[in-house]
Amino acid sequence: MKLICSKENLMEGINIVQKAVSTKTTLPILEGILLEADDRLKMTGNDLEIGIECYVDADVKRKGSIVLNSKMLGDIVRRLPDAEVLLDVKENNSVVIECESSLFEIRGIASEGFPALPSLEKEDGIKISQKLIKDIIKQTIFAVSVDENRPILTGSLFEYKNGHLSIVSIDGYRLALRTVASEFAVQDRNIVIPGKTLNEISKIIQPVDEELTIYTTNNQILFDMGNCIMVSRLLEGEYLNYMGIIPKEHETKINVNTKELLACFERASLVITNDERRYPVKLDIKDDMMIITSNTEIGNAREEIRLEMDGKELEISFNPRYFIEALRVIENEAVSISFTSNIGPCIIRPLQGDAFVYLVLPIRK
Amino acid sequence: MKLICSKENLMEGINIVQKAVSTKTTLPILEGILLEADDRLKMTGNDLEIGIECYVDADVKRKGSIVLNSKMLGDIVRRLPDAEVLLDVKENNSVVIECESSLFEIRGIASEGFPALPSLEKEDGIKISQKLIKDIIKQTIFAVSVDENRPILTGSLFEYKNGHLSIVSIDGYRLALRTVASEFAVQDRNIVIPGKTLNEISKIIQPVDEELTIYTTNNQILFDMGNCIMVSRLLEGEYLNYMGIIPKEHETKINVNTKELLACFERASLVITNDERRYPVKLDIKDDMMIITSNTEIGNAREEIRLEMDGKELEISFNPRYFIEALRVIENEAVSISFTSNIGPCIIRPLQGDAFVYLVLPIRK
Repeated sequence: MKLICSKENLMEGINIVQKAVSTKTTLPILEGILLEADDRLKMTGNDLEIGIECYVDADVKRKGSIVLNSKMLGDIVRRLPDAEVLLDVKENNSVVIECESSLFEIRGIASEGFPALPSLEKEDGIKISQKLIKDIIKQTIFAVSVDENRPILTGSLFEYKNGHLSIVSIDGYRLALRTVASEFAVQDRNIVIPGKTLNEISKIIQPVDEELTIYTTNNQILFDMGNCIMVSRLLEGEYLNYMGIIPKEHETKINVNTKELLACFERASLVITNDERRYPVKLDIKDDMMIITSNTEIGNAREEIRLEMDGKELEISFNPRYFIEALRVIENEAVSISFTSNIGPCIIRPLQGDAFVYLVLPIRK
Repeated sequence: MKLICSKENLMEGINIVQKAVSTKTTLPILEGILLEADDRLKMTGNDLEIGIECYVDADVKRKGSIVLNSKMLGDIVRRLPDAEVLLDVKENNSVVIECESSLFEIRGIASEGFPALPSLEKEDGIKISQKLIKDIIKQTIFAVSVDENRPILTGSLFEYKNGHLSIVSIDGYRLALRTVASEFAVQDRNIVIPGKTLNEISKIIQPVDEELTIYTTNNQILFDMGNCIMVSRLLEGEYLNYMGIIPKEHETKINVNTKELLACFERASLVITNDERRYPVKLDIKDDMMIITSNTEIGNAREEIRLEMDGKELEISFNPRYFIEALRVIENEAVSISFTSNIGPCIIRPLQGDAFVYLVLPIRK
């Protein structure tokens, strides 16, 4: 393999595929990036859960392939001058990297042992703007469970039904649901994407209007961004019937400014250190006002916030973190919060429409 | 104690005195900030090595004092709205912090047990611009030794002689010397300031032309910044005779672009991981050119750089980190480097003048 490629293009490709390179492996080849030169340069990272493939423009002088340690390659290319870079594979898998008056020779690994990415049929894909998918991942991923005892909840449900895409995360104490209308008629489907995969794809995609296409099989998902694709396994099993969890009725409902409420919860939780279950914040709703109080060994906090209320007065206690994480990702200026009772779930919704639903269970005292 | 103070002023004071608050102590009072209200609010942090005192404008309603946990106070004030903050000490050292509709009550500690800062006579002070002192600390501190076996070298020598202030750090393998001319006639002195103190003072001072004044005694130093002072102990003992270490003669001398040389060293050291002594970089100087090579188990790097040379051809090896750390803090576009021999020290100087001297010992092979 011998090729010339701009430092900029090479660096961009490395930065993307590095996200799928394993950092905790005893197999040196999995710490590497597979470089394959044909008409362009194809770069691949694969940690056996997630694989990323990226095409980069290059002037290929001799076709071939090699695996180079991802960290070493990234460190070297990052520090090269902004100029053309020559990559030349010599005997014994030694690789020369040359750029202006800099010359490196580092050891590569034969590409034969590099695990191939699974191939998926590119049909019946869901097209969605990159900015939108990035946003909806951010708005739901924090409620993904980290408890390996219920593996299915360590992913998010992607449900495509009647032209609507719903994304749901549930960790047993709360639920995050985000729904978007899609313009494309594709087959209905239900898949569960690992939280790690969603984290990595949201780092790769840019907040731009350009679309990416999502293809799925029973056990694989492929995100197609044109020059780059990412492939991941899916979680197997039945996801919870989330619609059954969301209550239809309420006894108390408030409309409140999102940022103000967030600031109150953040301050009220300052006197709570580690043992959050033992020290919840208490909400006291009456007379178009909410008093938020917390009381720990360190001290007390008390916050007052004006709001519009409808229904009964209510006293209820929560883990403030669950509210804080939801309120931080809501872009709407104001939200509506419905309470069923002081022991039942509470629901955060937009004032109009059904773009999102956050459910939080209270702490019973 | 009862006072009203703007959130902004309070936060600024906390951020400064927090730098002297101990984080590794079993005495809760040393994790606190002493607040004393008289005509203004005085805040003090003291970890028994460094003490910082800061005055903040406040509307004092009732004089008094209290100690509050530094982290807790900082976390609370940071999240308050930009408005007036009321601090009110109640019975049992409980402290109310109130700002708009937020109210905190946290436990304070009686101020009697807080260690007082040592008092120094403010006379015969050295006045120096804050930007300049910040720069010269940055330009010498990296060569301070971390080896506790020679405690005197864990500080920097500040030598004031004949209107010149010289700052010297030596760690046994290299030396950093920075000299500035001062306009004020004060008494000559020789003090050794702990590296930790220099680190903290350089975080507090701003890169502005405004002057600070340095007062010293045999075993204490005081930095006076007007509204804030910082006091620290000094290191005791005789510092090395640094002038005796710097060679006067050379066999080879080069003039070279600072940034280009830095980039070459940075790239050449990429193939060197941990064991730097085993894998030095080799410099090969001849024909107005320097070839820098490194050769490790990971691979080889080779860099070429054009320069002006004078004297003999030379082959010499160095720990590249010592060059990199010096070249990074040199602001001059080009430097002059003199070599005595391939086993003697090498000296980096400005092309003109004597504002700095960096000495690096080679690695003998």
